[in-house]
Amino acid sequence: MNTLSVAVVGAGYWGPNLARNFAGSPDWRLAAICDLDLARAEQLAHRFAGAEAVTDLAAVLADPSIDAVAIATPARTHHAVALAAIAAGKHVVVEKPLADSKQKAREMVAAARTAGVVLMTDHTYCYTPAVLKIRELIEAGELGDILFVDSVRINLGLVQPDVDVFWDLAPHDLSIIDFVLPGGLKPLSAAAHGADPLGAGKACIGYLTLPLPSGAVAHVHVNWLSPTKIRKMIIGGSRRTLVWDDLNPQQRLSVYDRGIDLETQALDGLERRAATVSYRLGDTWAPALSEREALDAMASEFATAIREGRHARTDGEAGLRVLAVLEAASRSLESGGDPSRLEPEKELAGDLA
Amino acid sequence: MNTLSVAVVGAGYWGPNLARNFAGSPDWRLAAICDLDLARAEQLAHRFAGAEAVTDLAAVLADPSIDAVAIATPARTHHAVALAAIAAGKHVVVEKPLADSKQKAREMVAAARTAGVVLMTDHTYCYTPAVLKIRELIEAGELGDILFVDSVRINLGLVQPDVDVFWDLAPHDLSIIDFVLPGGLKPLSAAAHGADPLGAGKACIGYLTLPLPSGAVAHVHVNWLSPTKIRKMIIGGSRRTLVWDDLNPQQRLSVYDRGIDLETQALDGLERRAATVSYRLGDTWAPALSEREALDAMASEFATAIREGRHARTDGEAGLRVLAVLEAASRSLESGGDPSRLEPEKELAGDLA
Amino acid sequence: MNTLSVAVVGAGYWGPNLARNFAGSPDWRLAAICDLDLARAEQLAHRFAGAEAVTDLAAVLADPSIDAVAIATPARTHHAVALAAIAAGKHVVVEKPLADSKQKAREMVAAARTAGVVLMTDHTYCYTPAVLKIRELIEAGELGDILFVDSVRINLGLVQPDVDVFWDLAPHDLSIIDFVLPGGLKPLSAAAHGADPLGAGKACIGYLTLPLPSGAVAHVHVNWLSPTKIRKMIIGGSRRTLVWDDLNPQQRLSVYDRGIDLETQALDGLERRAATVSYRLGDTWAPALSEREALDAMASEFATAIREGRHARTDGEAGLRVLAVLEAASRSLESGGDPSRLEPEKELAGDLA
Amino acid sequence: MNTLSVAVVGAGYWGPNLARNFAGSPDWRLAAICDLDLARAEQLAHRFAGAEAVTDLAAVLADPSIDAVAIATPARTHHAVALAAIAAGKHVVVEKPLADSKQKAREMVAAARTAGVVLMTDHTYCYTPAVLKIRELIEAGELGDILFVDSVRINLGLVQPDVDVFWDLAPHDLSIIDFVLPGGLKPLSAAAHGADPLGAGKACIGYLTLPLPSGAVAHVHVNWLSPTKIRKMIIGGSRRTLVWDDLNPQQRLSVYDRGIDLETQALDGLERRAATVSYRLGDTWAPALSEREALDAMASEFATAIREGRHARTDGEAGLRVLAVLEAASRSLESGGDPSRLEPEKELAGDLA
Repeated sequence: MNTLSVAVVGAGYWGPNLARNFAGSPDWRLAAICDLDLARAEQLAHRFAGAEAVTDLAAVLADPSIDAVAIATPARTHHAVALAAIAAGKHVVVEKPLADSKQKAREMVAAARTAGVVLMTDHTYCYTPAVLKIRELIEAGELGDILFVDSVRINLGLVQPDVDVFWDLAPHDLSIIDFVLPGGLKPLSAAAHGADPLGAGKACIGYLTLPLPSGAVAHVHVNWLSPTKIRKMIIGGSRRTLVWDDLNPQQRLSVYDRGIDLETQALDGLERRAATVSYRLGDTWAPALSEREALDAMASEFATAIREGRHARTDGEAGLRVLAVLEAASRSLESGGDPSRLEPEKELAGDLA
Repeated sequence: MNTLSVAVVGAGYWGPNLARNFAGSPDWRLAAICDLDLARAEQLAHRFAGAEAVTDLAAVLADPSIDAVAIATPARTHHAVALAAIAAGKHVVVEKPLADSKQKAREMVAAARTAGVVLMTDHTYCYTPAVLKIRELIEAGELGDILFVDSVRINLGLVQPDVDVFWDLAPHDLSIIDFVLPGGLKPLSAAAHGADPLGAGKACIGYLTLPLPSGAVAHVHVNWLSPTKIRKMIIGGSRRTLVWDDLNPQQRLSVYDRGIDLETQALDGLERRAATVSYRLGDTWAPALSEREALDAMASEFATAIREGRHARTDGEAGLRVLAVLEAASRSLESGGDPSRLEPEKELAGDLA
Repeated sequence: MNTLSVAVVGAGYWGPNLARNFAGSPDWRLAAICDLDLARAEQLAHRFAGAEAVTDLAAVLADPSIDAVAIATPARTHHAVALAAIAAGKHVVVEKPLADSKQKAREMVAAARTAGVVLMTDHTYCYTPAVLKIRELIEAGELGDILFVDSVRINLGLVQPDVDVFWDLAPHDLSIIDFVLPGGLKPLSAAAHGADPLGAGKACIGYLTLPLPSGAVAHVHVNWLSPTKIRKMIIGGSRRTLVWDDLNPQQRLSVYDRGIDLETQALDGLERRAATVSYRLGDTWAPALSEREALDAMASEFATAIREGRHARTDGEAGLRVLAVLEAASRSLESGGDPSRLEPEKELAGDLA
Repeated sequence: MNTLSVAVVGAGYWGPNLARNFAGSPDWRLAAICDLDLARAEQLAHRFAGAEAVTDLAAVLADPSIDAVAIATPARTHHAVALAAIAAGKHVVVEKPLADSKQKAREMVAAARTAGVVLMTDHTYCYTPAVLKIRELIEAGELGDILFVDSVRINLGLVQPDVDVFWDLAPHDLSIIDFVLPGGLKPLSAAAHGADPLGAGKACIGYLTLPLPSGAVAHVHVNWLSPTKIRKMIIGGSRRTLVWDDLNPQQRLSVYDRGIDLETQALDGLERRAATVSYRLGDTWAPALSEREALDAMASEFATAIREGRHARTDGEAGLRVLAVLEAASRSLESGGDPSRLEPEKELAGDLA
């Protein structure tokens, strides 16, 4: 198995985490740290044997020994850096959000498709042991059909200068929901309700409702103003229901073998479900979780996707779908809460034609 | 202090609870149990010395020794029974919901006003020690201005034959919020999002967003399909935030002396709040709660309101406000989630002119 | 299946619970309530059709239509009442404690054996769904060998006038441990440590250590002075460990598939366990529990034991074993904490020869 | 304020933590890392500007610019290194345990006293925000007289090759109890009960009962075999009771304003407490805690003690008292659980005469 070679672009907040995990991965060789600020690039590169500090992105992209680029620059620059890297034939992983608009993300997805390179979104949370296990359980049919997803992420949080609470916190929830739902998160519409009771100039409290084509619903509650911290996702299924309480390290995941059965009866010649309800009150089960660092699993997935010539689990399309929902949420918010229709799946998938 | 005399009308599910608490109250004498089914009335009346079983409501209303009537008949009959009682000069307490429509409730409120009798809605939950304490804390300014109310009430629940999950569960949340907010619950609009993923024919999962005139927001999540049970209300204030976890008997109420302060600065000659945020990380405080039964406190409040010639804390207007929100929620639900404006406060207050 | 006939003796605190459950059981006919206070007997008997109120125990025992007697008189009278009933050929269930001394209990066990009647101790807690499930899991080998039992039962509690905290609270823990351990609770010794920091004249805080013949240990912490309430039992096994948290109705039982494995190696020609330790970090599992009332299951067990001519699950010997431990605890307490040896198993088993 | 100069002796497991905190403290200059293994010393010293790597302890002690020595060598060498440092006039802080026997600890305490230098035990846990707050509350009388201390520290833990579970885990509990009890932990005796159900060759489960002169009791439960992790200390006081749940980051400390009042009455000419009990059911209060790293606070306390010429809060005597209890526990364990008397306070205090 060949070791792949990666350059990390951007040595600010997230770059060091990417660098550390690529440097520690058996799949990867960390070849270069690229930052406009040479001192910052050097400070980071010095921590990893063999990593070079550079300021010239073009030189990195021109280097044939480099297979891939990990982009951790400000969001507004993701599009330009990624397109250049793709044009140079590099595989690309981009810190979330994939871009600062859906349109740019769509262009990146299309470019990667044309170039035949891997475009991955670093939705880090998806590679935590808990989320990987949730995806595995849903894929294996353990929950049955998904009926609802309810996600709460509230805490005392910094009021961000540039984004509202939806854009700050909901990408976590949306990328996770996209990751675990078979086929990804493709809601029919998005209805967003926000409040700014402190007069901060943007929504500090947000509720987002996403009806799904199956009749299920996803809902996200994000809040910067809550002194009590909650990070909980309930995924209700027709067979079982899963609760992920990320603040309970002793039992993060609980799978409830309980539910409601509606009896199906033939009424008036029509097959319909009647009001007869029965309950199942079964066991609860808390699967053991590994303790692997999420970014390490992400780096490994990136390598495997490149080697197998397949999409990464959190591919560019995933990043695009999250952006599509966020933009729809913003539209709904501006309209005063009217649900905003989401564009057809085809477009979401990144087709430009 | 005169003992007041009450007749309980309706001996079905809730009537026995009313009868037991009136019979046990020093404020009241339980004079009669009235039910169309004499056997049922007798079975209940026999448990209380001095209570008579009757089937004829008119006779009860004609009896000058009876001061008040407690109505626990089916919701669709509340209007007729209450109007008759009011016309007979009786004080009236009505099991929730006050009526089965806002219009009927409004008529009941107007009739009671004209007749000068007390019309009370039995929003029982409001008289639990936890909710009484919440109201007291907010009234005393302990929380400061209310910024948000987030209420979650989810559990495996019977799919009701006649009502959806909003009408089944949200009246609890709405009546409580109405009770604790100074001035009551008077949202600008209601946006309701429901889902029926099992095909039960009605919403089994519901989210309700209620923007308040102050810029605050109230939100209610009700759900019949969750195998994990949550009954939690977070009330965020400018000074402190309160969390009511009704399933934690060891600490139902927690008051967090924490929050976010936005600094107000003069910018460009305008006084506006700048992005400077500071956190307070103070103590948490869990007030002790008494153990009085809620219905007992309700019976006592009914008596006191009559004696003092004042409105009960949960008066007819409170019942009307809850119904107004529920009807707006239904309108929003039918429209696919568009926020439905609520009628002006004047009308909500019960004025008919 | 014949219905059995029972008389409840003692209409004080516990008798009404026994009466209600025998009256509601398909296995039993509640024939009589016997109490020296006729009014009290009548008040109770009137609640159950067909139950007679009597004051004369001898008459009850002489009545051939009565199969069994349930004794709920003060503990100091259990011995006399039970011996009389046994002498009359009645099956007997006795409210805990079986007697007020080990010696008396031993005589009761011997008498029942000789007479061939069932002598049962009403260790009610053993018939709760949680404890029945624990017993079932241990019997099925799910936990493997039991390594330790740690039981905590603390709360703000009334300082009892006549007994210390060991005699007040530990019988619950001891009867449960006796019930779930294969072969019952037969410790080698008992070491009791108490404290009376308020000067109440008796131990208000107690710790009880019970080494078991297998090398395992049972430990009980009882405490009247704790404002935080804990009722938790941890049962560590060689395969799995079970935690019973009786104050967590949403997950009373948790079975941890985790543990420590010591590798066995041949060292110096001897097979011994070396220091090599490996951990298993497996799933957690919370079995669903039924909601049957414990006393109902107790009444049913009493009937079945009589019909099948076998010992009840909580037989006289179980009551005797609990008393033996309590007496040893008192001896240890008096000696200042020296462990007090427990008598040989043979004697504990009730043999008098 | 002069900066003090410190050498860290021992660059193994704990030394790096000490070095990092001394280097980061405004009170200290980290002058040297001393280890027999030069490479290990250098690797650590290189991380801190100005720190020299040395192998020769004598040279460090001879250096007049060095004020203090922090010892993080194996426990059996603490005595020799500390005595040499004290003889050289250095202030000394020693990683816990202070020594590997009470006798050696006593000699260290005496030597420091004679030399007039500060001898501090690095009981790190005492400097966590939670424990500092507990000490502060007890000192301020918030809990009243201490009635009991119950400490539980259980988890799946490595079976240590050289020590049993008492010596591995209980030093944490004992040093904390010593720190928060006014006057320190000076029990009348120690009764230890251990179990080794896996045949590991040493106690893996331990219970330790420590009666205090006031009539109060301290109890410690340590356990390597529990798959459920508990770290909880309950400190019952005559006014209030405190619960420290170290695994609940959202509410580590809870102070219950609840308790039992025994009425004192004059009976038979004697003033004694009668059985009249009343309950207080007051509020619960969770004080906010700072987030300072414990070792940083420890380094600061060490500097302050030196500057003020006073004992450190966790002085040599504290280390000695913990060792005295551990040795008594071992004696009790060997005797099969008989309580082992502790030596008179005078001796515990370190007097050798």
